Amino acid sequence: MTPHPTTHEPELRKDPILGRWVIIAGGRGQRPNPFRRYTTAVPSAAPCPFCPGQEAETPREVLRYAEPGPDGAWRVRVVPNLYPALRIEGRDDKRGEGLYDMMRGIGAHEVVIETPRHDEDPASYTRDHMAEVLTAFRERTLDLLKDSRFQSILVFKNHGPAAGASLQHAHSQIIALPVTPARIESEIKGVERYFDFRGRCIYCDILKQELHDGRRLVAENADFVALAPFASRFPFEVSILPRAHEPFFQTLAPPLTSTLAEILIDVLRRYKLALKDPPYNYVIHSAPPGAQHPERYHWQVELLPKLTEVAGFEWGSGFFINPTPPEEAARALRELDRVMDVPEGHLLASPDRI
Amino acid sequence: MTPHPTTHEPELRKDPILGRWVIIAGGRGQRPNPFRRYTTAVPSAAPCPFCPGQEAETPREVLRYAEPGPDGAWRVRVVPNLYPALRIEGRDDKRGEGLYDMMRGIGAHEVVIETPRHDEDPASYTRDHMAEVLTAFRERTLDLLKDSRFQSILVFKNHGPAAGASLQHAHSQIIALPVTPARIESEIKGVERYFDFRGRCIYCDILKQELHDGRRLVAENADFVALAPFASRFPFEVSILPRAHEPFFQTLAPPLTSTLAEILIDVLRRYKLALKDPPYNYVIHSAPPGAQHPERYHWQVELLPKLTEVAGFEWGSGFFINPTPPEEAARALRELDRVMDVPEGHLLASPDRI
Repeated sequence: MTPHPTTHEPELRKDPILGRWVIIAGGRGQRPNPFRRYTTAVPSAAPCPFCPGQEAETPREVLRYAEPGPDGAWRVRVVPNLYPALRIEGRDDKRGEGLYDMMRGIGAHEVVIETPRHDEDPASYTRDHMAEVLTAFRERTLDLLKDSRFQSILVFKNHGPAAGASLQHAHSQIIALPVTPARIESEIKGVERYFDFRGRCIYCDILKQELHDGRRLVAENADFVALAPFASRFPFEVSILPRAHEPFFQTLAPPLTSTLAEILIDVLRRYKLALKDPPYNYVIHSAPPGAQHPERYHWQVELLPKLTEVAGFEWGSGFFINPTPPEEAARALRELDRVMDVPEGHLLASPDRI
Repeated sequence: MTPHPTTHEPELRKDPILGRWVIIAGGRGQRPNPFRRYTTAVPSAAPCPFCPGQEAETPREVLRYAEPGPDGAWRVRVVPNLYPALRIEGRDDKRGEGLYDMMRGIGAHEVVIETPRHDEDPASYTRDHMAEVLTAFRERTLDLLKDSRFQSILVFKNHGPAAGASLQHAHSQIIALPVTPARIESEIKGVERYFDFRGRCIYCDILKQELHDGRRLVAENADFVALAPFASRFPFEVSILPRAHEPFFQTLAPPLTSTLAEILIDVLRRYKLALKDPPYNYVIHSAPPGAQHPERYHWQVELLPKLTEVAGFEWGSGFFINPTPPEEAARALRELDRVMDVPEGHLLASPDRI
C-alpha cells in the first residue's frame, strides 16, 4: 500500500457559531490535496488488502471470527484503519486560540472486513453471516466504550464509490470520538423535548403511529420495523427501528441479532431491485453513554441510498428538497414482496394491510 | 421543454425529532423517480431556454436589466422556475397528523439568468456585470420580503453538474420560504449565545482575529474579507464577510455592490486556477427578518467547492472529516496572487503579511 500523505496530528475543531466539531485531518506543511479522503484508499492496481492472503497489508486485527483450528479461514476481521482520521494514543489536550476551541484528534478508527469473498454483495449475505457482522459491530463498540475518553461510537457503511467507498471489497467502519457529533446531539435534544412534555419515547410513539398508518412501512419482522421517515431528506431513506424500547445498539443479542440481520438484508435487497444496485450508506444511531438521560433514546439504523447530488441550497441552509415522497418510496419497496422470497407473515403489500 | 412529472402540491414537513423542515415535492400517484431533481432540468438536446431568442420557453420575467429601448438586449433576467419546488399561491394551511406537522409548500422559486452568453463563466464576468447580478439578487429579495408569509429568502448558485446545476448556462436561484431553515436557525442561536455573553457580534470578532492572524485569509478589499473558516467542513470552503457589521444582504448598495462583485470574482478565479475549474456552490446567508434580534447577525457569502463525495459518516452524524486544513487551502489560494492580476494593495501573499 502506498504511504498516505499524512504527516501531522489530526485535530478536532469546534465551529464557534454552530458548536459543531470537525476533524481536520490534513498533512500540514505539504501541498494541499483536496481530493484525498480519509478512507481506506489504495491504488486500484494493487492487490485488494482485504482479501485472504493479504492480511499482512493491514494492521494487526483486533477481532477475528474464523473456522476452528489455528489456521481456520476467517469469516470477518476487524483491523485499525491504516490511514486513520483519528489517533488512538494520548490525551485530548483541549485548548483555545482566541475565539476558537480545538483538541487533539484522539479517537479510534477501525475497518470491519465483512467477508473473505472479494465480490460478495451484502445484499446476498446469509442471515447468519450478516448476524456475525452485526456481532462484530457490537463487540468492537463494547470494547471501545471501555475507554472513558470516548463520548460516542459511530458504526457506518459506505457502499459504492459515489457513497464514499474507495475499496470494492465489502467493509464498514467504526469511529470512536471524544465528542458527541452535532446530529446525535440534536436527536438527543429532540428526544428530551418530547419526553419532558409527554413522558414517553418519541420513537416508540412514531412506531405505533406508523404501524397503524401503514403508508410508510417497508418491511417488518418479529423484532424490527423498516419504514420511510415522514420527513425524509433523501429519496428512499429508510430507518430500521427495534419494536422494543432500547437505547443502546450494543445490547443487541440473540435472537435480535438474527432478526436485525434478516431485515437489513431484506432492505438492501429491495434497494438493489428497486434502484438498480445503488450506492448507499447506513449508520447506526445509538445513545451516547455520557448523555444526561441515555435511557430515553431509541437506537436505530439509518439507510441512505445516494441517488441525487446534494446542491448548495441543501448545504448552505440545512433545508432539503426531496423529490420522492416517502409514501411512494415505501410503496415501491413494499411491492417488491411479489418478486422477492419474503417469509410468510412478513408480507406488507397485501390489500388488507394497506 | 418536456413537461415535468409534478402533479401534486409540494408539502413542507417537519422532522418530529430534529425540528427540521423538508420540502416533499414529488408527483403523488405516479411511479416514483428518485433521480429527478427540482432544478431547471431540460433534455440536453433541446435549445438552451436561457439563451437569447428562447425567452418564450421560460415563464414571464419578474426582472430584466437591458440595453435602452423597447428591444434592447437583456443582460440579466429573473424568471419564476418552470418546475418550482414551492408554489407561490395560497395560505400555508398548517396542520398535524398524529405526531407529525406539515404545511402546504408555499413559497417562491426563481431563476436568475446571469448572462445572455451561453458559455460565459462567472469567474470571467466583468466587475460591472457581477455587480448587476448581485443587484438582481437584492432587488428580488426586497420584493419577495414584501410578502409577509415568507420567513426567509435563500439566494444560491450551483455551478457544474456535480454541484447540482442541470443547465450549463450560468444561473442562480432564489427560494422564499415560510419557515426558517435548520442551518440558519442554528446560526442565529450561536450568534445570540455569543451576544448574550459578550455583548458583541461573533462575526465581527472572528474578522478581527482572522485579520490579525492572517493564516486563513484568502483575499480582501476595502469592504470585504474572504477567509477559509477555522472549522471548515469541506476542503477549500471560503466565507466572504463584509468588514462592517450589517445583518441584511439586501441592504447592499454602491460602492459595496462593486467591491463584493470584485472579491467574488476574485475567489472564483482562484478556485478555477487552484482546483481546475471545480464544481461549486455558493449561498448568501442573511438575517431572517422575523428573528428576535436580526440586528445581531452579520450577513455573508459561503462558497463550497464540491471536491469529495460526502459519505454516510457525515450524513448520519453531522460530523465532518476535512482532509485539507483551512490554513493550507488559504495559502494555496493566496499564493495565486503571483499568477493573477491582483490590484495593488490587495496582495496577501507578501512576506510581511504572513
